[in-house]
Amino acid sequence: MAVAREAPRWDRLFAERTRGDVSEGIAAVLGFLGRPDLISFAGGFPDPLTFPRERASALLEEFAAGGESAAFQYAPTRGLAGLLDAIAGRLHTLQGRRPAEDELVITSGAIEALELVGKSFLDRGDVVVVEGPTYLGAIQAFRSFEAEVVAIAMDEHGLEVDELERRLADGLRPKLVYAIPDHQNPAGVSLSRERRELLVELARRHGFLIVEDVAYRELGFDDEAEPSLWSLDPDVVLQAGTTSKTLFPGVRLGWAVGPAEVSTQLVSAKQNTDQCAGALGQRLFEEYVRRGWADEQLAQSRSLYRRKCERMLTALERCMPVDTRWTFPKGGFFSWLTLPDGRDAGDLARRAVERGVAIVPGSLFFPDDRGGNNVRLSFSLVDEADIDEGIERLASLVKP
Amino acid sequence: MAVAREAPRWDRLFAERTRGDVSEGIAAVLGFLGRPDLISFAGGFPDPLTFPRERASALLEEFAAGGESAAFQYAPTRGLAGLLDAIAGRLHTLQGRRPAEDELVITSGAIEALELVGKSFLDRGDVVVVEGPTYLGAIQAFRSFEAEVVAIAMDEHGLEVDELERRLADGLRPKLVYAIPDHQNPAGVSLSRERRELLVELARRHGFLIVEDVAYRELGFDDEAEPSLWSLDPDVVLQAGTTSKTLFPGVRLGWAVGPAEVSTQLVSAKQNTDQCAGALGQRLFEEYVRRGWADEQLAQSRSLYRRKCERMLTALERCMPVDTRWTFPKGGFFSWLTLPDGRDAGDLARRAVERGVAIVPGSLFFPDDRGGNNVRLSFSLVDEADIDEGIERLASLVKP
Repeated sequence: MAVAREAPRWDRLFAERTRGDVSEGIAAVLGFLGRPDLISFAGGFPDPLTFPRERASALLEEFAAGGESAAFQYAPTRGLAGLLDAIAGRLHTLQGRRPAEDELVITSGAIEALELVGKSFLDRGDVVVVEGPTYLGAIQAFRSFEAEVVAIAMDEHGLEVDELERRLADGLRPKLVYAIPDHQNPAGVSLSRERRELLVELARRHGFLIVEDVAYRELGFDDEAEPSLWSLDPDVVLQAGTTSKTLFPGVRLGWAVGPAEVSTQLVSAKQNTDQCAGALGQRLFEEYVRRGWADEQLAQSRSLYRRKCERMLTALERCMPVDTRWTFPKGGFFSWLTLPDGRDAGDLARRAVERGVAIVPGSLFFPDDRGGNNVRLSFSLVDEADIDEGIERLASLVKP
Repeated sequence: MAVAREAPRWDRLFAERTRGDVSEGIAAVLGFLGRPDLISFAGGFPDPLTFPRERASALLEEFAAGGESAAFQYAPTRGLAGLLDAIAGRLHTLQGRRPAEDELVITSGAIEALELVGKSFLDRGDVVVVEGPTYLGAIQAFRSFEAEVVAIAMDEHGLEVDELERRLADGLRPKLVYAIPDHQNPAGVSLSRERRELLVELARRHGFLIVEDVAYRELGFDDEAEPSLWSLDPDVVLQAGTTSKTLFPGVRLGWAVGPAEVSTQLVSAKQNTDQCAGALGQRLFEEYVRRGWADEQLAQSRSLYRRKCERMLTALERCMPVDTRWTFPKGGFFSWLTLPDGRDAGDLARRAVERGVAIVPGSLFFPDDRGGNNVRLSFSLVDEADIDEGIERLASLVKP
């Protein structure tokens, strides 16, 4: 008699760090994305209207006609020299400081920068402070290195830096403080000038590294922007940026700029992740910057997202019950909704899907048990024409 | 009097795992690559002659003309459905088995698959068995998770699997065994059929996962190929592949196929590295496979590399002293040179650079102190016309 062979079980071999995985949260969000039948305020994705398809195609034709090899070959781990130069120049223009050669590294999106920082800094039990709420991917990335992730509350001026100061005085010893100072994901608020200055001062005093995520910085609805943390003190800040909104996300591309010692450690770590960011995306973005196309595209994107945001805020004002609150973003992709007391956002999300509307419950954006009556509303990907209808349906579920 | 502010030092905050870094080895190799004045047998890069520039450009034009969004947007972490289907079909054609949907994941190159495996499986002190010599990037990736990397010797039939069997009997307990069975990097040999069967049998018996790197599998000079380890027993093998030789490396793209439980864990881990592989590269490769272009390009590449290999082997035969040995690759990019007793390859590499020739000393490909009189010679990137001259110069330095 034949004995049935049993397939081995592998989870018993998985590393300790996989035990704290919170990936089901992201999976739930991404699950909504494959459903074109939903009016989706869920995903933080750019609007395809902003994709520069023809220009990308024309550039690749140029590369091909010129017999170029660099766009098709492996790149150095730190990045192609031309792109490093273009981004350094752009940082000089936009943030007033040109990084030295060894302070900059090209990454495969901003999320990879967080992974590289985690791999470079975090041993089991190390403390990382984040904004509460914060980017879900950052919580996951830091936890995946078995760090203890501690959220400090935010208000309409961003992270409550004075609260961080108190916690530091009480003995909190973070290695890293992760912040999204501009048009924050998911809260849709920006950090005030005064708090920025205090934050870098605390970093210097207490010896932690600030990880500044500027994913939405260039997507302000008007031209005013507070100075970046990195420009305030490049000795204590590693800034991570992405080209997902200045080019398109289909090439995974970003950068990290910070102290040379840190940047060089990230290059070492990157040799094991993907060795280098894709050269084709690097060459496309280099030409986008050099030809001024990145700025042209950004101007169009800002105007589109501003219009969508205003439409969503107007609909919220019109439809939501009076005891519901939300933030008033001045850029980026998100507004943060606070439901009336006692309402559960997870329950609302489930009922909303039944009514054809996708939202993300706020608890996913905290490393602790907060956010139960919050909702992240993204206006970036939803069709403009669907915004009113989507908010109306949502409001009808919020009403008592 | 102003007090000079001192920049903080960050290395005291770096994680324990960064201490065992061997990245200087790779940096040394990559250093050669930026020097067009050298005849380089150093880098394992594809020849730009194989890059399908016009076809890539034509495809992007199609995507743009069709108003396609998928190629420009974020992709699901596991990969775009169309590419997953195309690769599953290709695996069926080439390796006789079509993976189930949850057994396959798209990665940012084969190196990222190794990173994801390391992150998913390796706690400090876990044992990983590798071939001695092996891919330097794999040694780094596993060590970066503080694993103990143990090399088992190879001969002209590949890994000495009977030696592995003895070590297992003596109590060696690896979580992972990493192998490159086809046209191995750096040894230029392939694993025999008999040893393949014993290796998967050992995996089943001892409960370790085989990580099979097939980077060079489709680059055999003739059509004969032994069955892949994954096709011999898909329950105990995770296979990592790359499109760097079937498309081009400028989009970082690969795949991993293995037990559903492992593949799904890699998807979780990938959410923190780069969230998804670039969609543009995914769409390009999907079309390459569907239109039969991948196979056309491979046929041309094999013929080019075969010609270059034969030329290098002929030059070695003509020029090298009689007590120098080398392997006779039947595919891939590499031959492995053994210098006469007592000769130091590191010393040879330094003197070769002075004579305008780049090679990689063999010690970089071992996790221990072996390889001191070995050299990796890559014929993939060197200009065909330079091969004779390069080998002549090298041989003049080897001669007593």
